[in-house]
Amino acid sequence: MNSFDTVLEQFINDLNNNFVADIYANIPSGKRLRPKLIFNIIKNEQSIKLAAIIELIHISSLLHDDVIDDALTRRNENSINNTYGNKTAIMLGDILYSKAFYELTAFDTKIAKIVSKAVSTLSIGELEDVKLAEFFNTDKELYLSMIYKKTASLIEASTHAGAILAGHDENIYKTYGKNLGVAFQIIDDILDITENSQTLGKPALNDFKEGKVTLPYLIAYEKSSFNTQEKLKSMYKRVLNKEESTWVKELLNNTNAIKDSYNYAKTLANQALTGIKEPKLQEIISSILDRDF
Amino acid sequence: MNSFDTVLEQFINDLNNNFVADIYANIPSGKRLRPKLIFNIIKNEQSIKLAAIIELIHISSLLHDDVIDDALTRRNENSINNTYGNKTAIMLGDILYSKAFYELTAFDTKIAKIVSKAVSTLSIGELEDVKLAEFFNTDKELYLSMIYKKTASLIEASTHAGAILAGHDENIYKTYGKNLGVAFQIIDDILDITENSQTLGKPALNDFKEGKVTLPYLIAYEKSSFNTQEKLKSMYKRVLNKEESTWVKELLNNTNAIKDSYNYAKTLANQALTGIKEPKLQEIISSILDRDF
Repeated sequence: MNSFDTVLEQFINDLNNNFVADIYANIPSGKRLRPKLIFNIIKNEQSIKLAAIIELIHISSLLHDDVIDDALTRRNENSINNTYGNKTAIMLGDILYSKAFYELTAFDTKIAKIVSKAVSTLSIGELEDVKLAEFFNTDKELYLSMIYKKTASLIEASTHAGAILAGHDENIYKTYGKNLGVAFQIIDDILDITENSQTLGKPALNDFKEGKVTLPYLIAYEKSSFNTQEKLKSMYKRVLNKEESTWVKELLNNTNAIKDSYNYAKTLANQALTGIKEPKLQEIISSILDRDF
Repeated sequence: MNSFDTVLEQFINDLNNNFVADIYANIPSGKRLRPKLIFNIIKNEQSIKLAAIIELIHISSLLHDDVIDDALTRRNENSINNTYGNKTAIMLGDILYSKAFYELTAFDTKIAKIVSKAVSTLSIGELEDVKLAEFFNTDKELYLSMIYKKTASLIEASTHAGAILAGHDENIYKTYGKNLGVAFQIIDDILDITENSQTLGKPALNDFKEGKVTLPYLIAYEKSSFNTQEKLKSMYKRVLNKEESTWVKELLNNTNAIKDSYNYAKTLANQALTGIKEPKLQEIISSILDRDF
């Protein structure tokens, strides 16, 4: 049985292009959350191949995301668009995406549908993310639907497909992945507010500056008086001075917006565990909730 | 039986996103060469769906190509990247690509493999096109292999998959599509030299200025003395004055490079027709060869 790394390497070698292999070698390998989830459900030849396909899709989506978000770094290293330019990042993303889809054709139609549908959903999520950052969105449902699409859909597809390969109850593992994905994103959004900029590697309150009205802001807005709402709006998409930053952070604390967001993520995480027996999958959920607190 | 347009429209509606539908509506429909080829092999419910999938893939690849080539126009209208920005063009391309792959899962593994493999090949071709424009390439094989990948592979997949759906001889139709695609690109390369800039909608000798050493240049270079080769090289990737343009055009004529390129395309086209009985498929080949002469 070939290892996950060997299979992924083979996919890249199949492409038979030195330039692709060279750039690919410069992509840091990341947390590999999706493969880890799959292997904690089932580890066999098929699931290793599936995990490699999903990781390739994930890498492709990040390559394009970083172009779209003008991100200069990824995993604390220079992003591919930063090092090689946007065009190379776009082309490499297309190459890896299509290789992943080609390999996916070896799987049952049911699994191929689940994974390819998730890619379609996540690419719509990326667009919604950009569109929602164009104005001060106050609709929580729009936000939650967007992060489900952008962040959770491929995680959900990973655990769902893993359950099918393992012959487990599909819905239990599908819900696990979906809830984990949404909770993960909410914790990320909280960290953007609570972590200091050094730990985070980017300025605090960065999301709000970039137009992203994440869950804590949505809750704080909902709970505030008209005047406070207007003041918060006036700070949207701006570089804030120290006094303004402090005011925003205090608002997010005083309205319990941070705490409520965390509890929302915790509730999702608890629901995720219904029917899940694997201790490792329970640990992964806990580690996500404990990322900073 | 739903029409091709209805199926394509349904794919877009499935995505359930107004912004996507709005931008999509602004993409001119183009020549629809690939659907036309498929329908001249077989027209039924399955082949209409396949043609819509392949057209969606083609549209996605053009969306990304135009970003990569900084193209401001497409089919004589503003390109999507020009109107909506590069980021939207990238995202829309990803959305349409993944929708196409999702729909492809409804087909036999064999067809899904052929089409997805072609997408992988064409995205490698796009990268090779960019890399080959970084230096004065004198290797004809590299050039021909690149245009096969970039232009012919999806056309080849269209006629190949069409033949499978029709129960025809696969190799005959595969060769037809492949040769047609390569011939099409060579004629395009010739037109960049022989057409006047008004008809073409871009300056003549534009390819050479952008670093693309196409077949006529490769042949002229091969047939020239060292001094002429050096002079040609000195004009590479430059805006040429009238005298220089004339010199290049005369070189391409005097070495028979245009004529040889045309004959190369014609030979491919003749080979393409071996075993092809459909008069319409013969006509399409002729119309490509006669595009300008």
